[in-house]
Amino acid sequence: MMIKVGVIGSAGYTGGELLRLLVHHPDVKIDYVHSKSQEGKSIISVHSDLIGDTDIKFTGDFNKTVDVVFLCVGHGEAKAFLAEHSFDKNTKIIDLSQDYRLKVNGNAPTYQGVPFVYGLPELNKDEISKAQYIANPGCFATAIQLALLPLAKAGILNKVYTTGITGSTGAGQSLQSSSHFSWRANNIQAYKTLTHQHIAEVVQSLQQELGGEKQPKINFIPWRGDFTRGIFVSQQLESDLSLEELTNMYEVYYKEHPFTIVSKSPIHLKQVVNTNKCAIQIEKVGNEVAIHSAIDNLLKGASGQALQNMNIMFGLDERTGLQLKASNF
Amino acid sequence: MMIKVGVIGSAGYTGGELLRLLVHHPDVKIDYVHSKSQEGKSIISVHSDLIGDTDIKFTGDFNKTVDVVFLCVGHGEAKAFLAEHSFDKNTKIIDLSQDYRLKVNGNAPTYQGVPFVYGLPELNKDEISKAQYIANPGCFATAIQLALLPLAKAGILNKVYTTGITGSTGAGQSLQSSSHFSWRANNIQAYKTLTHQHIAEVVQSLQQELGGEKQPKINFIPWRGDFTRGIFVSQQLESDLSLEELTNMYEVYYKEHPFTIVSKSPIHLKQVVNTNKCAIQIEKVGNEVAIHSAIDNLLKGASGQALQNMNIMFGLDERTGLQLKASNF
Amino acid sequence: MMIKVGVIGSAGYTGGELLRLLVHHPDVKIDYVHSKSQEGKSIISVHSDLIGDTDIKFTGDFNKTVDVVFLCVGHGEAKAFLAEHSFDKNTKIIDLSQDYRLKVNGNAPTYQGVPFVYGLPELNKDEISKAQYIANPGCFATAIQLALLPLAKAGILNKVYTTGITGSTGAGQSLQSSSHFSWRANNIQAYKTLTHQHIAEVVQSLQQELGGEKQPKINFIPWRGDFTRGIFVSQQLESDLSLEELTNMYEVYYKEHPFTIVSKSPIHLKQVVNTNKCAIQIEKVGNEVAIHSAIDNLLKGASGQALQNMNIMFGLDERTGLQLKASNF
Amino acid sequence: MMIKVGVIGSAGYTGGELLRLLVHHPDVKIDYVHSKSQEGKSIISVHSDLIGDTDIKFTGDFNKTVDVVFLCVGHGEAKAFLAEHSFDKNTKIIDLSQDYRLKVNGNAPTYQGVPFVYGLPELNKDEISKAQYIANPGCFATAIQLALLPLAKAGILNKVYTTGITGSTGAGQSLQSSSHFSWRANNIQAYKTLTHQHIAEVVQSLQQELGGEKQPKINFIPWRGDFTRGIFVSQQLESDLSLEELTNMYEVYYKEHPFTIVSKSPIHLKQVVNTNKCAIQIEKVGNEVAIHSAIDNLLKGASGQALQNMNIMFGLDERTGLQLKASNF
Repeated sequence: MMIKVGVIGSAGYTGGELLRLLVHHPDVKIDYVHSKSQEGKSIISVHSDLIGDTDIKFTGDFNKTVDVVFLCVGHGEAKAFLAEHSFDKNTKIIDLSQDYRLKVNGNAPTYQGVPFVYGLPELNKDEISKAQYIANPGCFATAIQLALLPLAKAGILNKVYTTGITGSTGAGQSLQSSSHFSWRANNIQAYKTLTHQHIAEVVQSLQQELGGEKQPKINFIPWRGDFTRGIFVSQQLESDLSLEELTNMYEVYYKEHPFTIVSKSPIHLKQVVNTNKCAIQIEKVGNEVAIHSAIDNLLKGASGQALQNMNIMFGLDERTGLQLKASNF
Repeated sequence: MMIKVGVIGSAGYTGGELLRLLVHHPDVKIDYVHSKSQEGKSIISVHSDLIGDTDIKFTGDFNKTVDVVFLCVGHGEAKAFLAEHSFDKNTKIIDLSQDYRLKVNGNAPTYQGVPFVYGLPELNKDEISKAQYIANPGCFATAIQLALLPLAKAGILNKVYTTGITGSTGAGQSLQSSSHFSWRANNIQAYKTLTHQHIAEVVQSLQQELGGEKQPKINFIPWRGDFTRGIFVSQQLESDLSLEELTNMYEVYYKEHPFTIVSKSPIHLKQVVNTNKCAIQIEKVGNEVAIHSAIDNLLKGASGQALQNMNIMFGLDERTGLQLKASNF
Repeated sequence: MMIKVGVIGSAGYTGGELLRLLVHHPDVKIDYVHSKSQEGKSIISVHSDLIGDTDIKFTGDFNKTVDVVFLCVGHGEAKAFLAEHSFDKNTKIIDLSQDYRLKVNGNAPTYQGVPFVYGLPELNKDEISKAQYIANPGCFATAIQLALLPLAKAGILNKVYTTGITGSTGAGQSLQSSSHFSWRANNIQAYKTLTHQHIAEVVQSLQQELGGEKQPKINFIPWRGDFTRGIFVSQQLESDLSLEELTNMYEVYYKEHPFTIVSKSPIHLKQVVNTNKCAIQIEKVGNEVAIHSAIDNLLKGASGQALQNMNIMFGLDERTGLQLKASNF
Repeated sequence: MMIKVGVIGSAGYTGGELLRLLVHHPDVKIDYVHSKSQEGKSIISVHSDLIGDTDIKFTGDFNKTVDVVFLCVGHGEAKAFLAEHSFDKNTKIIDLSQDYRLKVNGNAPTYQGVPFVYGLPELNKDEISKAQYIANPGCFATAIQLALLPLAKAGILNKVYTTGITGSTGAGQSLQSSSHFSWRANNIQAYKTLTHQHIAEVVQSLQQELGGEKQPKINFIPWRGDFTRGIFVSQQLESDLSLEELTNMYEVYYKEHPFTIVSKSPIHLKQVVNTNKCAIQIEKVGNEVAIHSAIDNLLKGASGQALQNMNIMFGLDERTGLQLKASNF
């Protein structure tokens, strides 16, 4: 039986990337592709690479009784959208915005009385499999926490110094001076130094694994990179454990998680670009530990992970429709 | 039943790209991955993006009785390889080099007495479906001829002025000064001006459609582009036909060919990068016609088309394993 | 004695590039830097690379009695600006827009009754040295005509097939979907096929050299390139002259022009990026001639050539302030 | 009077960049351009962007009595070269390799009994002005220490977490898999994690300012970036000083140093690319300080700084020949 899917906000980057996955997913029937701004137009007029794959059109209406709806709207807009529209109780919702990620006083945000589960399969697979509503993690948040969760689980996480670099698609398709090709090509810039909004959800996840009152500190400097897709993160912390112990701890933690892979060789960003993978590598000199991680910000960092969550929610193999050819070059 | 596949020369770019496709092909079992230079190593040590997908190792030996073998070796090396090794009569061979593409005195080159078929499905699908041996087309040759074949079929092709630009993977992975990042980044250069070796196979295909003695003239200037994947070609010629007549002629010609798509909107390279598609667009001002075409040089221009040929040879839907998510960004 | 300079429209790309040159020009004193949109702000707030070089501020007013004023405004805006403002009769004007480039019925456009001279030093150096007003050539126009003028001079120019590629700065700093980094990175697209507005000024210059009624035909397809600076053009035509005769003809034509250089080795774009040079190379196979040319679109294609014109108008060595270190990498 | 200059190892990246500067330096006469590998060839055959600027040829011999010789050879090769050749006692030497940067037991390395001075003008301008031999700093070392020296001077430097990204020219022109365009384009990778050789010279400089026995700890993770020119570094440390106090401390420290500029606005890499500048910006949240710095690795990080040292050694304004137009885009 095919899963009937609706996509809200489908003219943006994460919406488009989700459509690229959905058109080839063997268990999915796209019910509607909603966009206020593009209503009536062919989706090819916006996502031109889908030429020859589909001739669906954007709709202004949408069906509230599909099996699952993906919210690919901007931050703040998901909450506003759900405040305005009542979906059927049986319709699952996967929200790619940050609106429902953070607990308030220890309680997950709810919709129609039902809580949102934070949709990081490596952390919450069981809860996701039973969830009605998913808050899909942020891109930087995914790359940073996947590199730290095993340490949190082992209770040995304290202060972390983190630098990450992101492709231009992380900033969405709005036209800004920092998204202008002439500016961004061959350029690097720090932004939101020590104040990036994703750290809150990283800390929340780490605390879930740390247990109790422990409050890890993540000092994060994000950089704008001169590429379109991907996130690469290097983090530093101190530990007495040996490199072998650390690597082993990570391998055990991610044993049942096919997309998160611990590499003993040096990783590089393009290993994972255009895939749903997260590659992790650990290095150690003296007591100083460096942990590198890499994801595709639009896939494992957004639409790929959203689809992985859908697969888990509907009892499918989580890899369905996500065994993607890396572009590699 | 699974198709048993062997790959010769699997440490190079086209070999790697083929492996990326084969590991996810539902009807394929990879029998061996041959590389003299990398024998005994994991294929991940070379094609690092396959981490988590497979743990196959390169072999120095190979099995001569697989269902199909792909030759991903350099130009000249395929012929030398087949001269040295006798494959089983039932083993199909798909050669990605240029060694068997050109007829000599009107006769296709042979191996063990059986002729090679030129593996452009849009031109020779029936012959491919019955072929034992395939000469897979060149990358520039694919992009150029797909943009001209309908005109040849209509008998109206004469002199063509062609400029094309190719990504760095078109030149293979050998280290050359023109493949150095410091040189190639943000750079453009013409090379092999009016002497590119692919024109011979383009002319051969055009003559097949033109029939008789007509000798089309293709004046081709290739450029090195500052990107890794893809080929974009613009060609100029004169015609009395209207834009509508031309576009319609192309749509009819490619009606049964799912990967070659005639676009009425402006095309761009990234529409097809990381897919097996060829996008074509025609423009006309006065009597002057411009035809743009775009492919991914490693897919429709090499390994993707090779797999498309395998699908046709084994009676599968030609799209099997080739419905790829475009990277688009 | 220092030349007092004013710049109108100095917040844009060509204005900024001109300021980068002017701050180091030994014979120039910048009198004002005009920008309606940025009035009162430091020019560093827009042209951040000038940090440490100057602390000039944008003004909303301007002085009509400077020695020379550069108009770095958009197409159409130069004419509107001059219609509204009367500069002193002794103030020279160099207009970087296309507003005054084309003759009407054989007559150059005028301002306050004085004609504009088309500011291509390789074509009109004498006229420029005596001119009051200069219409600075377009970027593609510069690269295309410098590659054809010697043929026109020899009277042997007929039909030309031209493909050119331009960096993103050629489209200015306005935010458009085709200037978004996510779109343009690693991408190629044709635009304004056979209809580019610069061809008119190319034909005008070629006719000036051809003399009489000859009407050369330039079939030009421009491409958007995935780099920021530079133009590379390849042109095809037929000729009976030998490569040696052609190369010699070009060397003679450009003997007195230090920035236009005929290369016998293959040229590439980065040879000239961040310089005021134009590199030209000729190749020949049979009767078919290919001529490649490369410039930096913001320098020889805009602000550098404008300054070269200023130097000539004020009797300076035309290279003054223009002996720039190529970035090369 | 013109300074007679010789360049050893002039076919490499730093040699080429130095030549680009020397050909336009008003007080320099290039005496010879030495390269064993390219002897007899025109320098344009290697540094093709110098076309039209010079027709010097590489020589295999060299003159030991020039005023100054630049050693642009690889690490280890400078020491070997000077062991083999005796330059005149009056010939100044500027070595761009790392061979003479580090003191041994507190003593600077010597040549012919005369010590090398570490050529960072912001740290040692007086010593440089009197020096016979200069050890020119490393590229990463320059960017890292310029961002930390004021803190060391104030005696408040302890442990620093540093991430830096470098362009491909930092790795030289040798062909390696990580310098292949197909690999490096759109890619990011960490390398030499916590073990980069430049940290030793950074620590040596910081100790010079800290005085006494203090041993600062720099935890440095370098990344390979997907651009050709430039280094961007972000460093984290703790401090009780306010942002204003810190910024003021830096401005005071660099008051007499025209190339090192403290910015109160966000800096970005292309602000300094193709210039000899170092841009520094400080940010602070709570007690956590982030310091960003950016240089061009071939200029302030190598050949530009070498020429700045020459200017100081010969009593010229240190900016002579170094007031370069930023490429900016």
